[in-house]
Amino acid sequence: MSAFKQDAHKLLVIPGPVEIADDVLFANAHPSMSHVSPDFVPIFGDSIRMLRQVLYAPTSQPFIVAGSGTLGWDMVAANVVEPGEEVLVLNSGYFGDSFADCLEIYGAKVTQIKAPIGSKPSLEEVEKALSVKKYKAITFTHVDTSTGVLSDAKGLGEVVKKVSPETILVLDGVCSVASEEIRMEDWGIDVVIGASQKGIGCPPGLSLVAASPKAIKAFETRQAPEKSYFASWKRWLPIMKAYESGSAAYFATPPTNLIYALHQSLTTITKGAVSLEDRFKRHVEVSDRIKNFIKTELGLEQLVADGVRDGAHGMTAVKFPPGLKASDLLPKLAAKNVVMAAGLHKEVKDTYFRIGHMGVTVVDAQRGDIDHLLKSLQESLAEAGYKKA
Amino acid sequence: MSAFKQDAHKLLVIPGPVEIADDVLFANAHPSMSHVSPDFVPIFGDSIRMLRQVLYAPTSQPFIVAGSGTLGWDMVAANVVEPGEEVLVLNSGYFGDSFADCLEIYGAKVTQIKAPIGSKPSLEEVEKALSVKKYKAITFTHVDTSTGVLSDAKGLGEVVKKVSPETILVLDGVCSVASEEIRMEDWGIDVVIGASQKGIGCPPGLSLVAASPKAIKAFETRQAPEKSYFASWKRWLPIMKAYESGSAAYFATPPTNLIYALHQSLTTITKGAVSLEDRFKRHVEVSDRIKNFIKTELGLEQLVADGVRDGAHGMTAVKFPPGLKASDLLPKLAAKNVVMAAGLHKEVKDTYFRIGHMGVTVVDAQRGDIDHLLKSLQESLAEAGYKKA
Repeated sequence: MSAFKQDAHKLLVIPGPVEIADDVLFANAHPSMSHVSPDFVPIFGDSIRMLRQVLYAPTSQPFIVAGSGTLGWDMVAANVVEPGEEVLVLNSGYFGDSFADCLEIYGAKVTQIKAPIGSKPSLEEVEKALSVKKYKAITFTHVDTSTGVLSDAKGLGEVVKKVSPETILVLDGVCSVASEEIRMEDWGIDVVIGASQKGIGCPPGLSLVAASPKAIKAFETRQAPEKSYFASWKRWLPIMKAYESGSAAYFATPPTNLIYALHQSLTTITKGAVSLEDRFKRHVEVSDRIKNFIKTELGLEQLVADGVRDGAHGMTAVKFPPGLKASDLLPKLAAKNVVMAAGLHKEVKDTYFRIGHMGVTVVDAQRGDIDHLLKSLQESLAEAGYKKA
Repeated sequence: MSAFKQDAHKLLVIPGPVEIADDVLFANAHPSMSHVSPDFVPIFGDSIRMLRQVLYAPTSQPFIVAGSGTLGWDMVAANVVEPGEEVLVLNSGYFGDSFADCLEIYGAKVTQIKAPIGSKPSLEEVEKALSVKKYKAITFTHVDTSTGVLSDAKGLGEVVKKVSPETILVLDGVCSVASEEIRMEDWGIDVVIGASQKGIGCPPGLSLVAASPKAIKAFETRQAPEKSYFASWKRWLPIMKAYESGSAAYFATPPTNLIYALHQSLTTITKGAVSLEDRFKRHVEVSDRIKNFIKTELGLEQLVADGVRDGAHGMTAVKFPPGLKASDLLPKLAAKNVVMAAGLHKEVKDTYFRIGHMGVTVVDAQRGDIDHLLKSLQESLAEAGYKKA
């Protein structure tokens, strides 16, 4: 597998896509396979089963479909929620706005609780909102990639259970699945929306969704007609059940090579040398180390107002010091073969940059990716004329 | 690149996915890249430009989006056609039924002209239908993967131009793009829907669509609100324009590795040793050879009633001789490391099997794929007890 050695490319430490392990890239180059062949069927079936494990959700129904993470929003908006139904969107950044747009296109009546940039709606605000109106669903961005804010998934699950147990709790985990602990079943999460290119450690191109029995029941008992074709669970549910039970079925051709890559990555995550529990611990430890370095060694602030309470463990959004901007820093990092990301939230995007620390970069310490990114960041800031006060 | 040598895998000769060239598989294993990096932007932009070339459509607007080919139907149904508008669906097999379902979900009023299995609606029937009612759009399956019927794209373009020039002509080319000649602009085709895993020669996972200025205008002047989020041209159009003009823009993360693979494959198709014109010629020659062998050497019939007039050049659907079925033949082929496909059209699926002959298997004669598949087929039929009458 020497053709895949990653020594000749730039270290990708943005909040997704992230570095991909060599064996996953190798799987992505699998010779072309029939999507209905007896060799491929168990690869798809195992991937469905392993996705359940990653989410601690043995009774959930996963969906693995060709698409971007965004397709998961359409799946929720077109299958779980019916036109005219009320949805509460908790907004902790760019992705809350966009999910709200998607829900409205499919006919939902959306109410948003918008937090100031760098924070998230409080559990008290959510409890109050759920007390005054009945919502079919409530959505939140587990990690908002634009701000690095981590929502309190467990706490939100408790609030919903207490105040409005019929409400379907939807976790947008595109930037958290496999990098943040998500105990879907214990915490009472009904839908998890994910993607392949972040914590999961694959190339982009897969929409990964899991639905609780409650969410599936909401779909199965819906009165409104189908609102989408490609995003329709009516179309995909029999396909997922067939592949999991060991036979092929056809709706649209599944992305075979990406599913080989997913299978390889999920095998490492669920059966590899580092347990799932340790995987999440390492993401917390590395995140703490990076955030501590940013503060004490570099003297910089996070975009997240309260980094300890609200900071994600798979990414860090860092405010530029006065006088510095993305075009001063990012090219200097690129010259050292390190790729970080500019800001994304439209209201403040020029004031910060983003570091991704998910997947193999975090879990495989022998790669030395974290040392390399911190050292390169410190040097690049110095080259750009920044001195810690 | 020796790790990618294809000598240790089964020859995949189904009507998609098809064999993938080694350099395309290698590109699919590209180290992970930022979707907004200056290295990736021109790869995306070039892919858009080359897709136009393959379709002989210099003024068209391509869309390259993570998804299966099916997503292209949603794009047409949600962007080009408005709820309540009339659409004429020409049905030459399974995929006509499904496209009609998709259009109806988004609110179109669908009229179908259904041909008997193995044939297609005649130009006279189409002309008559267009004369009695005004249609917003007319759709046809260029090659129906379930039957192997090839529609007369050029003839349909002439009929529409003559009888109803405002009508938008939609070609479903999932099983024809890059294996059948499509002169989109000369023939008056307004939308071409494609996918990555057939004539294009990539892994599955990309929806490839091209729209004429007339189709884009229909989208831009539509009165109805957006009907989809992930399939929305309002969302994707600025992204495609940005990447083509050399800058990045964000709606949903593009499938970077698949786009590297697409770029490699399109480079071979548009700039390789075999010209685009010769590529299409070779598909015709190889198809003629296979169909002739099936008839004269094997004494078998095609599912397509009139193979010369109606047969696709990238696949062949072959009727089983009396007493033989898929489970007699396909395992014997698999034992020889050759993968062909069972029938797909639900009304007759047990009565035939399918051979795919697209892409590198056809264009790169040195691989010897065609000799190998014909020899294996003849031997497997003999082993199954079949003797030519």
